[in-house]
Amino acid sequence: MEYLDQDVSNCSVGRAVDLVGQPWVLLILREVTRGVRRFSDIQNHLGVSRSVLSTRLNGMVERGLLELRDYQEPGARRRSEYVLTAMGRDLYPLITALRQWGDKYLADPEGPSLLATHHACGAPVRVSLMCGEGHLLASGEEVDRRPGPAARPRL
Amino acid sequence: MEYLDQDVSNCSVGRAVDLVGQPWVLLILREVTRGVRRFSDIQNHLGVSRSVLSTRLNGMVERGLLELRDYQEPGARRRSEYVLTAMGRDLYPLITALRQWGDKYLADPEGPSLLATHHACGAPVRVSLMCGEGHLLASGEEVDRRPGPAARPRL
Repeated sequence: MEYLDQDVSNCSVGRAVDLVGQPWVLLILREVTRGVRRFSDIQNHLGVSRSVLSTRLNGMVERGLLELRDYQEPGARRRSEYVLTAMGRDLYPLITALRQWGDKYLADPEGPSLLATHHACGAPVRVSLMCGEGHLLASGEEVDRRPGPAARPRL
Repeated sequence: MEYLDQDVSNCSVGRAVDLVGQPWVLLILREVTRGVRRFSDIQNHLGVSRSVLSTRLNGMVERGLLELRDYQEPGARRRSEYVLTAMGRDLYPLITALRQWGDKYLADPEGPSLLATHHACGAPVRVSLMCGEGHLLASGEEVDRRPGPAARPRL
């Protein structure tokens, strides 16, 4: 079996893994994606100390995944919440891919604990592989790999 | 903003993160998905020691993601390679989601270093969000979350 023996140092998968491939990043993304946005709620859900969570959330703000936003509900004091940036929102397919795989292989016998459904029609939302011609790829369908414009030979 | 305040201990995202949410698991999956299957080639690409890689690959075999297969090319000695199990192959959308997000936000100015294309037609392969009714979801389109059959209230 041949593969593309190219330099992997500028591989997009590797760079994405550097930024979001830590368990705690993925779990914080899960929480914020589901609407858990206040520091105390995220802390409560993830069971980590204030100082650890603070460092992690600040790191995700620095990396451009989250931003801190002030808001005020009528009659309440001013509060802050963490919201996804556009870059963070674009990780929703990644979180969905994790959920879908977990639902298939790791869920309790009775099924998933959470369902994500299309707001417009109520049907369950899944990630699919699709090509630029609009073909849906079957599971395991063959994909070719070829060097992109930034491909470099291995040293 | 309201969210489902349910027990997250049986969340499929969390369980998937436990199994595959480590950088080294994701990078090994990337390699094997691309056809890099021999121990020495994976080691060479990832730049880790034999003992570390051996522990990691064994762990992925134990978790059911990879299996070790013997093969023999004509005139060559018998060798072993790591191949994805069905459970491992089902992580291809996850790896594609990482690549796609990395290509968008983290690629070199000239573009991606690798292109994945549909073998049947040659068009680029992407992950898309699609609902059970066959609607393609636009980026940021609203998704509802509701308790699944295994949902439990938070203690």
